[in-house]
Parts: sequence; structure tokens; C-alpha cells
Amino acid sequence: MTTETDPRFQRSRETIVNAARELLLRHGPAAVTHNQIAEHAGIGRATVYRHWPRTDQLLAEAMATVPMPFFEHAASPYREWLTRELTAIARQLDQDDVRAVTSTLANAAQWDAGMDARRAGFAGILSERLTAALDEAERHGELSLRVDAATAAAVTIGPIYYRATIERAPADASLIERCVAAAGEWRTP
Amino acid sequence: MTTETDPRFQRSRETIVNAARELLLRHGPAAVTHNQIAEHAGIGRATVYRHWPRTDQLLAEAMATVPMPFFEHAASPYREWLTRELTAIARQLDQDDVRAVTSTLANAAQWDAGMDARRAGFAGILSERLTAALDEAERHGELSLRVDAATAAAVTIGPIYYRATIERAPADASLIERCVAAAGEWRTP
Repeated sequence: MTTETDPRFQRSRETIVNAARELLLRHGPAAVTHNQIAEHAGIGRATVYRHWPRTDQLLAEAMATVPMPFFEHAASPYREWLTRELTAIARQLDQDDVRAVTSTLANAAQWDAGMDARRAGFAGILSERLTAALDEAERHGELSLRVDAATAAAVTIGPIYYRATIERAPADASLIERCVAAAGEWRTP
Repeated sequence: MTTETDPRFQRSRETIVNAARELLLRHGPAAVTHNQIAEHAGIGRATVYRHWPRTDQLLAEAMATVPMPFFEHAASPYREWLTRELTAIARQLDQDDVRAVTSTLANAAQWDAGMDARRAGFAGILSERLTAALDEAERHGELSLRVDAATAAAVTIGPIYYRATIERAPADASLIERCVAAAGEWRTP
């Protein structure tokens, strides 16, 4: 029997997470079951159960492998930086895997405390990073009448998220420009 | 054996839809299975299968029982009307059942063509009604420099949707005021 320090244990763990992620992206969260993972990964169902007795934890682990590096490295000119970052978010949400993970997280969080903690952490990071960047822009005299910290993420990311998940269409430059403008009054440095 | 015109057929159909809706709201879309519906409704599994061979159709039917009467009856003063409507949307999304249905619809639409058609219909109705109301406001001289039709729903509803589903917090008056302002420049009639 393999143990947690055994390389074979790590390999089968990775195989399982990859299979779970592929099933999530192709068929949605309902497809992430012990049976389908075992079949998709070509390993025994008992092995899947041994690694993850509950599929919701496995789904969370699979979702964590999709990176979301947003609002990092803020720099002047901040208006251009925010435009780039929001464009990147829009492009990411236009990709099936990121949209699948974000929307599954927001949905599952309503009934699963673990998913809800992950959602809250994700929302918190976005809001904190964005607020720190807007603070910086204000200190540099590039932004005035700025949106308050509690509202910043909703007015800048919200329209892009709605476009991607409810309207299911790409966010064009005009929508992103509106989101940038919602942060406050910009001045060229 | 009951037939579709038989009142008993209609009654068992209603019982099944109600059970599906309750399971959705309490435990999420994954709980809407033939087994759990039969148990919850206290009827045979075969009866559930006879009415709905596929649970995704049943889930869609259960979701359709949650009404979403938004952006109806636009009237001057339009700014106040829009504030009322967006406040109503925020309150609805703050309720577990409406948020569950909206977010399940947006998520399931990624893997289910029927759900996607329903999502598209829902997004289309919101956008059309809102655009018609903003047109009216513009004709009455109450709105200028208005947001274009394709962008209107995303900038006015998006922040409220993000607040409800990603940030999971109520939309306060200040956020709603920002969403109303995103429609264009308002003038008191």
C-alpha cells in the first residue's frame, strides 16, 4: 500500500486532480464524480476514494489549479494599468476554464461552506489589490473623486463578469473603458 | 394508468416540480435527482421518471416557477424608476431562491444547450426592456449622453450581480446610485 510520502501516491493524486479538472471543464461540476474520475483517469475507484472521500473537496482542489493572477504589480500610469488588468480579466473570463471555475465557485458557494470560504477569499483579494492600486493612483495625483473601497470591485469588475456569465459575449473596449471610468476621475500623469 | 389530461397526472407533476424547486433552493442543483425528488415528494421513482426522464429538464421547469419581473412599466421620472427597479433587482438577488436560480442558470448554461437558451432569453429580455426605458427617458429629455444599448445592462446590473454572487453582500444605496449614474446624464423633469 502506498503512503503519502510515496512518489506513486503523489502521482496518482496529480492524475486524479487533472482528471477532475478536465471533467469540470468539459462537462461541468456535476460530472466530477468518483466513478467518472476513475474511468477518465484509468485508475481504480477505491484509489480515488482513498485520496478524496468527498468529490466537493476534489472539485475545489481541481479549481485551485486554475490560476487567477489579477491586479498585481500596479504602476503608473495607473489608468493604463487598470485598462490592461480589466482587459486581462475580460479575456480570462472569455476562456471556458476560468469562466467555468469562477461561475462554479459562485454557484457552489451557496450550499457549501468550503466553497463559500474560497469565494470570500477570492473576492477579498480582488477588492484589496484593486483598492491598494487606486490608493496609489490617488497619491500620485492620477485619480480623484475615486470610488470608495467597498464599491470599487463591483463597479469595475461587475459589468465584465455580467457580460461574460449572463450575456455570454466578449467585453469590448468600450465596456472596459466604462469600467475604468467608474473608478473615478483620471488625470494623465 | 394516468394520462396527461387526468387531474392526477397534473397533480403529481406539480408535486414533482415543487419538490425539485425545494431541493434546488435548500441543497443546490446537484440535489435535484430522481431519487431525492421521489423521496422528498413521497411518490414512486418510476412516476418521477415518467414525467421527466431527464433531471436537467425538471431543474429548468422548477427554475421557471421563480418569477423575475424586472424593468416593467417604465414611467417618468425615469431616474427614480430606474433606482426603484435596480433596488428591486438587488433585493431579489439578496433572496436565496432568486440568487440560486440565476446563478445556477448562468453556471449550467455552459454545459447545457437548453439552459443556455433560457439564459440568453433572460439576458435578452433584461437588455431590451432596459434599453426601451432609457430610450423613453431620452425622448422625454430626462437622460442624455446615455450608454449604448449593448452596454446598458452590463453597467447597470453587473455591479449588483457581482455584489450578490461574488461578494455575497447586499447592494447598498450608494452602489445602486452608481449603477443609475452609469446609464448617462440625468436631468430632473
